[in-house]
Amino acid sequence: MQTLLTVKTHFSAAHRLYQPAWDDVKNDQVFGLCANPNGHGHNYELEVTVEGPVNQETGMIMDMKALKTLIQEVVLDRVDHKHLNLDVPFLRGIIPTAENLAVAFWEVLDPRIPAGRLYELRLQETERNIAVVRR
Amino acid sequence: MQTLLTVKTHFSAAHRLYQPAWDDVKNDQVFGLCANPNGHGHNYELEVTVEGPVNQETGMIMDMKALKTLIQEVVLDRVDHKHLNLDVPFLRGIIPTAENLAVAFWEVLDPRIPAGRLYELRLQETERNIAVVRR
Amino acid sequence: MQTLLTVKTHFSAAHRLYQPAWDDVKNDQVFGLCANPNGHGHNYELEVTVEGPVNQETGMIMDMKALKTLIQEVVLDRVDHKHLNLDVPFLRGIIPTAENLAVAFWEVLDPRIPAGRLYELRLQETERNIAVVRR
Amino acid sequence: MQTLLTVKTHFSAAHRLYQPAWDDVKNDQVFGLCANPNGHGHNYELEVTVEGPVNQETGMIMDMKALKTLIQEVVLDRVDHKHLNLDVPFLRGIIPTAENLAVAFWEVLDPRIPAGRLYELRLQETERNIAVVRR
Amino acid sequence: MQTLLTVKTHFSAAHRLYQPAWDDVKNDQVFGLCANPNGHGHNYELEVTVEGPVNQETGMIMDMKALKTLIQEVVLDRVDHKHLNLDVPFLRGIIPTAENLAVAFWEVLDPRIPAGRLYELRLQETERNIAVVRR
Amino acid sequence: MQTLLTVKTHFSAAHRLYQPAWDDVKNDQVFGLCANPNGHGHNYELEVTVEGPVNQETGMIMDMKALKTLIQEVVLDRVDHKHLNLDVPFLRGIIPTAENLAVAFWEVLDPRIPAGRLYELRLQETERNIAVVRR
Repeated sequence: MQTLLTVKTHFSAAHRLYQPAWDDVKNDQVFGLCANPNGHGHNYELEVTVEGPVNQETGMIMDMKALKTLIQEVVLDRVDHKHLNLDVPFLRGIIPTAENLAVAFWEVLDPRIPAGRLYELRLQETERNIAVVRR
Repeated sequence: MQTLLTVKTHFSAAHRLYQPAWDDVKNDQVFGLCANPNGHGHNYELEVTVEGPVNQETGMIMDMKALKTLIQEVVLDRVDHKHLNLDVPFLRGIIPTAENLAVAFWEVLDPRIPAGRLYELRLQETERNIAVVRR
Repeated sequence: MQTLLTVKTHFSAAHRLYQPAWDDVKNDQVFGLCANPNGHGHNYELEVTVEGPVNQETGMIMDMKALKTLIQEVVLDRVDHKHLNLDVPFLRGIIPTAENLAVAFWEVLDPRIPAGRLYELRLQETERNIAVVRR
Repeated sequence: MQTLLTVKTHFSAAHRLYQPAWDDVKNDQVFGLCANPNGHGHNYELEVTVEGPVNQETGMIMDMKALKTLIQEVVLDRVDHKHLNLDVPFLRGIIPTAENLAVAFWEVLDPRIPAGRLYELRLQETERNIAVVRR
Repeated sequence: MQTLLTVKTHFSAAHRLYQPAWDDVKNDQVFGLCANPNGHGHNYELEVTVEGPVNQETGMIMDMKALKTLIQEVVLDRVDHKHLNLDVPFLRGIIPTAENLAVAFWEVLDPRIPAGRLYELRLQETERNIAVVRR
Repeated sequence: MQTLLTVKTHFSAAHRLYQPAWDDVKNDQVFGLCANPNGHGHNYELEVTVEGPVNQETGMIMDMKALKTLIQEVVLDRVDHKHLNLDVPFLRGIIPTAENLAVAFWEVLDPRIPAGRLYELRLQETERNIAVVRR
């Protein structure tokens, strides 16, 4: 039996989808309205799931408060109420699609969680669009 | 690491659960109110998930607008505001349970998506009932 | 100070929007896909709000279980898993738009609730469309 | 009896809360993270409610498709995937708080709807914050 | 035009519905499962709405952060993760129905908000039951 | 292709997180507000997913009404409107964290469902915290 624990958090940010190696025509074709020069934004919902046995003494897979504090420090404090293209050093040079953001968040969270325990990261950009990274 | 992209869509349709090989008593036993001769209906929510590497040039697993257009053309335009037992050729002869609908939608979508990329199709019939098909 | 109590319920039904006094061209112009001859359907959410002073002995505006039982008997048992145009005597002759349904439900509920206590009836047809009747 | 019809729509946009008449210290005190120079963003949900008698021929308070088309043209096409401080002429000079946006949307919608029929405009900025304008 | 601002918060608490002036048989008749001696509990959602003109300098009806801090201090810190019958001095002697809780929260909030500005308090006990107090 | 069917249910209960082998200081460190002696509570959402081939005669993986009845009898009737530490024999001696509850519910449901068919049990304690058990 696999046991998992999921914590849901959220943040609000601006972003722009734009590939600088392309001209504006191609950016418009691929990214449409998302290429708007001044950016647009979203209320992102971020779910982080850890895997592992249930500790018999605490009844917990992991200390949920510690996990929330870690997500706050490593991800949310850096991206909440920011422009993801301009204000976030660890996202520099990345086109901030939901997929790329999910991968980038995984890469900063995974080294801070006991090895192999991070199981899934789910980033909902709008009610219609979701990216998932899973071990 | 597995990377996934999910698109959520919805449609509204009527249906009736009825097995013509049975008499009405058995249909009532198995399908209950869902066997009502004139049908009833739902607001369905359909989530389609594709799997694959993130394209380094676009930051995308797949072009989300193209995926939405495909779902619209192949599924939604045929079922939205229809009676699923009477109006939809590719559902002819199927009892339109959530499970059968999910399988049928998979079968019309899968050939139109690059091989092996369709990962999961999730059909929510009501807030209480969900069918999933997964590769 | 005004005090209110709201009970949320839901039901699933088929319907068709069609004005028999018009030809099909005009029905299509006004009702579009909703005029599909075989009907379509929705998961309706129905909220009923009563108004009144809080009874000091019970801490309640009205007995919520009794209110739910009344809604079940007077509305839900007659419309759940039905075709609203064909199966529901008290809706006969009404085009079952959200507005007309809300008014019809108000008219069957109001006489069964102490005078003046029914305050609002809210019928959500989809996540995008809501009709409200208010005293 | 009052009868109402509500249409829900949504859009995604960036904004910044900043009063140019103040220095940065005061802007930070009043607007906090929302004053971030490069902006942040939200998935806004916009509900527009109209009031009026139910037309006996159509069963409708107002043609919902026409109302949605109007909201699309007058509001959504101008604000969706935009930066509200920089890209939207009719919001020029306004601090784009939820309250100010709701008032501004009311002012562009009201003249396009039969007199007195626009009843309420509700703008949800996040799941926690909502502004309402009501006649 | 009326302008309103709503803040949504939530808390989790245990409670028991029990009228000590009655015997257990009558308590069971009126409160049913809610009279369970050891209590049960809910995730409550509390919405507080203030009314007033939009300040032209800030674009705000009221400072939302200050309003959230006030609700946190005056209500949430006293009821979150508590047993409402046993742990909360300002609820002593009240049967903690949704209606009575909403009235009690209004009474502690209203004196702390500029006169006449508190417009509505909405307490959702479950997805099915909501109490509202309105000026 | 894997086919799954999910049923969503909910219940409301009180609980307390407390390890009797520890002193109060350590309980406070680990469980924080959740260690409140008189308990607190939640609206739990429980999703049960079964796996299996779609029966060609019924179009169903499993009879959904029978599955709902089983969950009602085996889980909900024992925990709804109860104090999970005090009122539920099959939870005696367990710290009622979301993880432990999910495991305990799995253990009472699995023997009552055809072997290998129970696939996943998901227990949402609040909108922020979810435990999952999966075969």
